[in-house]
Amino acid sequence: MTPRLPRRLGLLLPGLLASSVALAQQHAAKPPILGFLGDHGTAQRQLEASFDASLDARELDAWLKQLSSEPNHVGSPHNKANAEWVLRQFKDWGWDAHIETFWAAIPQPLEVQLQLLGPHPYIARLHEPAIPEDPNSSQHADALAPYIAYGADGDVSGSLVYVNYGLQDDYKELARRGIDVKGKIVIARYGSGWRGLKPQLAQDHGAIGTIIYSDPADDGYARGDVYPRGGYRPEDAVQRGTGAIFAYYPGDPQTPGYASTKGARRIPFEQASPQLKIPVIPISYADATPLLKALDGPVVPASWRGALPITYHMGDSDAQVHLRVKSDWSLKPVYDVIATLRGSDYPDEWVVRGNHRDGWVFGAADPLSGQVALLAEAKAIGALAKTGWKPRRTLVYASWDSEEVDLIGSTEWVEAHADELSRKAVLYLNSDGNSRGFLRAGGSHSLQHFVNQLTADVTDPETQASMAQRHRAKLLVDASAANAKPADKRTAGRLRKGDDFPIDALGSGSDFAAFTQHIGLPTLALSYGGEGEGGVYHSLYDSYTHYTRFADPGLVYGVTLAQTNGHGVLRFANADVLPHRYGDLADTLQDYVDDLRQLLETQRKQAATRSELLDDHSLALVADPRQPLALPERIVPAPELDFTPLQQAVNQLKQSAKAYDDALAARKTPLPNAQAARLNKALQPIEQTALYRPGLPNGRDWYKHLFYANGLYTGYGVKTLPGVTEAVESERWDEARRYIGYTAERIRAYAQAIDKATKLLALAS
Amino acid sequence: MTPRLPRRLGLLLPGLLASSVALAQQHAAKPPILGFLGDHGTAQRQLEASFDASLDARELDAWLKQLSSEPNHVGSPHNKANAEWVLRQFKDWGWDAHIETFWAAIPQPLEVQLQLLGPHPYIARLHEPAIPEDPNSSQHADALAPYIAYGADGDVSGSLVYVNYGLQDDYKELARRGIDVKGKIVIARYGSGWRGLKPQLAQDHGAIGTIIYSDPADDGYARGDVYPRGGYRPEDAVQRGTGAIFAYYPGDPQTPGYASTKGARRIPFEQASPQLKIPVIPISYADATPLLKALDGPVVPASWRGALPITYHMGDSDAQVHLRVKSDWSLKPVYDVIATLRGSDYPDEWVVRGNHRDGWVFGAADPLSGQVALLAEAKAIGALAKTGWKPRRTLVYASWDSEEVDLIGSTEWVEAHADELSRKAVLYLNSDGNSRGFLRAGGSHSLQHFVNQLTADVTDPETQASMAQRHRAKLLVDASAANAKPADKRTAGRLRKGDDFPIDALGSGSDFAAFTQHIGLPTLALSYGGEGEGGVYHSLYDSYTHYTRFADPGLVYGVTLAQTNGHGVLRFANADVLPHRYGDLADTLQDYVDDLRQLLETQRKQAATRSELLDDHSLALVADPRQPLALPERIVPAPELDFTPLQQAVNQLKQSAKAYDDALAARKTPLPNAQAARLNKALQPIEQTALYRPGLPNGRDWYKHLFYANGLYTGYGVKTLPGVTEAVESERWDEARRYIGYTAERIRAYAQAIDKATKLLALAS
Repeated sequence: MTPRLPRRLGLLLPGLLASSVALAQQHAAKPPILGFLGDHGTAQRQLEASFDASLDARELDAWLKQLSSEPNHVGSPHNKANAEWVLRQFKDWGWDAHIETFWAAIPQPLEVQLQLLGPHPYIARLHEPAIPEDPNSSQHADALAPYIAYGADGDVSGSLVYVNYGLQDDYKELARRGIDVKGKIVIARYGSGWRGLKPQLAQDHGAIGTIIYSDPADDGYARGDVYPRGGYRPEDAVQRGTGAIFAYYPGDPQTPGYASTKGARRIPFEQASPQLKIPVIPISYADATPLLKALDGPVVPASWRGALPITYHMGDSDAQVHLRVKSDWSLKPVYDVIATLRGSDYPDEWVVRGNHRDGWVFGAADPLSGQVALLAEAKAIGALAKTGWKPRRTLVYASWDSEEVDLIGSTEWVEAHADELSRKAVLYLNSDGNSRGFLRAGGSHSLQHFVNQLTADVTDPETQASMAQRHRAKLLVDASAANAKPADKRTAGRLRKGDDFPIDALGSGSDFAAFTQHIGLPTLALSYGGEGEGGVYHSLYDSYTHYTRFADPGLVYGVTLAQTNGHGVLRFANADVLPHRYGDLADTLQDYVDDLRQLLETQRKQAATRSELLDDHSLALVADPRQPLALPERIVPAPELDFTPLQQAVNQLKQSAKAYDDALAARKTPLPNAQAARLNKALQPIEQTALYRPGLPNGRDWYKHLFYANGLYTGYGVKTLPGVTEAVESERWDEARRYIGYTAERIRAYAQAIDKATKLLALAS
Repeated sequence: MTPRLPRRLGLLLPGLLASSVALAQQHAAKPPILGFLGDHGTAQRQLEASFDASLDARELDAWLKQLSSEPNHVGSPHNKANAEWVLRQFKDWGWDAHIETFWAAIPQPLEVQLQLLGPHPYIARLHEPAIPEDPNSSQHADALAPYIAYGADGDVSGSLVYVNYGLQDDYKELARRGIDVKGKIVIARYGSGWRGLKPQLAQDHGAIGTIIYSDPADDGYARGDVYPRGGYRPEDAVQRGTGAIFAYYPGDPQTPGYASTKGARRIPFEQASPQLKIPVIPISYADATPLLKALDGPVVPASWRGALPITYHMGDSDAQVHLRVKSDWSLKPVYDVIATLRGSDYPDEWVVRGNHRDGWVFGAADPLSGQVALLAEAKAIGALAKTGWKPRRTLVYASWDSEEVDLIGSTEWVEAHADELSRKAVLYLNSDGNSRGFLRAGGSHSLQHFVNQLTADVTDPETQASMAQRHRAKLLVDASAANAKPADKRTAGRLRKGDDFPIDALGSGSDFAAFTQHIGLPTLALSYGGEGEGGVYHSLYDSYTHYTRFADPGLVYGVTLAQTNGHGVLRFANADVLPHRYGDLADTLQDYVDDLRQLLETQRKQAATRSELLDDHSLALVADPRQPLALPERIVPAPELDFTPLQQAVNQLKQSAKAYDDALAARKTPLPNAQAARLNKALQPIEQTALYRPGLPNGRDWYKHLFYANGLYTGYGVKTLPGVTEAVESERWDEARRYIGYTAERIRAYAQAIDKATKLLALAS
């Protein structure tokens, strides 16, 4: 089903898409597929066509409706029912499936209260009312009260301070105005940094409680019409979410690095990674307005303003609030549904594919829109298998539970099977929410060309161009904006030369984390988005009705996601040679080293400018005495850092990668079986050479990958070459020097692992 | 009186200002003053000290209170009373003063109505209620209803379209969404471009009426607390203003180029410069909210959003409004108060100083805060004169009327005295509103060094640094911002080398326009601002109470402005040699030529990028079919333009300027009287060589200065090298080529005029 297009489209959009672009697309000879030799690529494309033929958008729609019909957070009746339903489907479709259960102390709210005290008292509603136009919204008997998982229990009262996004720089701004938050309750708006950083930093600064609200500037009326007129966040909608501090490790906090099976040893929370010790509560903008209105103190700087019709003040005044949170901390079951389809040629090489199943309430967009694509793939593959076809490698499909609270389902499963996965898995392919729009692709950069090829063979339902082509167009158009970043322009220049589009490095925030950063599997995360109206994230209104009106009417892009990831799984399953092109990784690492040099140069320039403006009193002279503002601090300029070891390692990697890539490109005919097996066995662990066993510094030893990691203070956001980059950004120069060495060593190890594969490939010919 | 500083200041601002900066300032040997020879500079500084001693902030405060006590728009009883009161003061202070009266058909509102029709009807209040905390606000019996002067009479009904700022690019955005405004009424927000362009462009696009409202994003609650809690625009405040299309000529539309004296011949409005033919009304954001809420149609792009708590839509829907405006178009008297103090040595060399006196209602900030500074100067100079001192040149002080509606008082006076002014005037020095903060300096660039010296000798009341020093600090700090423009960074680089700070080129929007652009006098406009809270511009609430709470408590900066402009007048009055340094102009013109080259280069890059993105279908591919948007138009790349004639002329000017500037700098002893007189007589008309008698093209022949003019579509904003720049921007390449020639010729004429002066200076030694 194609979404109905508004009347004006015919008028305004030139008819070129159906003609020149799409025709050029169709008639171009299909290029060979990386990793497929001889005529295997042609056969593979035929397989993909059969796969596509059994995808049915109406099924995805029905599954979405069914799975999102009741609240399905971890521990809820519908969560368990969904697990069992998914299990039955896999079995019906011919997969070998089971539920693997873990147990974790996942807090869920018993009592949540918030009041503004003083002359204009206000009791926060903390309630998302039913919307007549959305039948789902009234079926929330089992829904949890809006809360932040892993916020502490507490009952606190104190004066209120508005801290903008509640990130490091915001506290510097407060300090320049003589405001601290010790013994106070902070109110922060969602956005800019990850949710959980806000209470964590508030706590670090001495606050006794944290309120996080959704400002309409972020995803409410300032972005577009609110639900149900449009898709954006209505005034009572609340963004739930986790506050688990996963910068040290994700998964059950009480079983660090090992699986939280039923009888597993559990450490007390006090011995786990840093935990929130203050209560936290998420609220709507309807509830936030009276609180923010009650504040006085300095008017905020322009960048702190939201879209409420008030003058935002920092507070530090008489406005007092009372905040109470009490949770049930009992053990909850975590149901991972695991389905396998044994490979015919390489049963001990696993292609792992996953998407979580638990939502905060109905979870239609997040995560069920991705879940139903995964199910569609499984059904279509099952149908192929029923005809006698078998994948050459083993497929493992996972429907994860309890992603939302701390990536628990996937992390515990990885920890339970780490050894086997390290030996056998050749790919982890993740998805999560999905909607209309553009490709979102992240992962291991040796798979960049694989992703380019994969998405060049998938058609965009809106333009009939390929998804790769539409993504390239977006990168080019974005780079032409007046405020485009230098990196975007660099990318556009390369695209114009015909280079592949780049894929993003992965941080955290979905189930790939343990696969990538803990055990070093080649990883991809692929989905679509950017055109849906997404203002109901983690609220009651993330419902089937909302999703099918505003995110992906007819589940058209659900089918497109199933095509994309299904083809991806099948290509990995059947490739003669695992489809890596290592030169892309080498080039990417070169960019990262260049970025590091640039980071230092920028830091030194900023330090010099700041010093000049302090030394010549310019900053003092522009200060307005009626708006007192302490001078900003001097910046110590970065010392010289020797990047030679990194650069030499990257040079070595480039050379090794070129030798391998050239050899593979030159190979036209299939390899002898035994040699192919040896080659693939050599390729399988290469990504793991990027793991530094002692891990990242500062208590983050669970994170072992030295090319990518989420940062200590970036939430989901990625840091590339994280050991070096984070040390540089935090001005820990000795640590930076050490991690330059460790990282260079890992890159050289990676190059040497490639060299071994190259030799096997040469032997083969 | 120093404004009381908030408690925290001592805590937060380092004590360095009173120490290092100010001390360095005091103890530095005073440099010679440009144009003063021998020990005349020392005497001049003693004169300035005497002048300063008789300035009294309490007097400025009292005058401001008196002049702003009732509505004083042109034609009002209090306007006339103020003229007569100012006249009496000048006479009391020993000046030869009179009122010069002009007459113009200045429209004033009889009836103004606005209604939203349809299912949620709304009658606009169009009323600014009294605020208890502001006693002035209840004294508005004589106040005019909020209106736009020179909007047409009319009674129209039609559907409503939101057009953002209502500028050219906004109509392109509407067109891309298939929306036109023919036969409709547009609602535009204030800001970005000059008020009068909004109805003019609406009319050009076929609209039948225009509503302009003050969005709180611009000067309301989004900027800071609204009046009376803070100084920003409250929900009912309306920005009045003129809609006169002064791009062709300012002043009385019925007497183009000549004075609108009582019996002057008046042309019908239809024969005058283009006039508004549709009714226009300004409204508050309280009145705008129901109108904007009633709109549907496409949601606006992000840059169109204001700060109201709604989703902004473009409209083109069922929302119908009714708009009615009827004005009194009778002749109104315009009372210019002109005061002269005859010069002892050069009575036929005039230093002209002006500030207007008419406000839209009380006009405390605009214009009376500048008017009282001018009065303070006149009183102090009068006091000096009573001791027997006389200025060497004649001083002419003007209190202009009817600036607000179309710069009428000053323009008509200039047109009445054009010949005499062209022969005698050596400077026009303008001010308008004033408030706490930073220097704002614009004018003829041969006076740039004069301004730097002048403001280096005036102390900032807040920091005790010089005003020049604080201004330099601001330019350096602004240029260090992440989003600083290349030109700002260029300036900062020069300041770091010790260069003078640049002054701005002047466009229009205050009484200097006729002096600068019509008759080519050396002009300056100097004032302070940037720290006051200015959200009541052109509303009822621009009152004494507001001004003294939020703009300049204690009129401290009023005294600073009187010092600055008083010293400026006295230096011009007494200089041995008129204080020009022509190299600064030459350098500035070089920048303008470079800017032109950059403009073309940017245009070509944009054209190339646009074509690429159209040719490869990128723009088509990123379009969202559910938000139909026509592709943007192709840009025709600019042809080659030969700037050699301009560059050669600038080179010649640099050479001539250097010869003169060096010769003047080398001269240490006074010149013989007769030779000094001849030299000054040669310097007086030099700026007029920049006048091109046929004027600017496209009906703008009143504007004759080829270095600076306001643009055809920039409102007050300046275009430098306007004949060339506007032709380039509008892609009229033949016109650009012609004006390259004319402009080069004027620059060469300027250089030759300098050469004559250089010879006289050489003869003198």
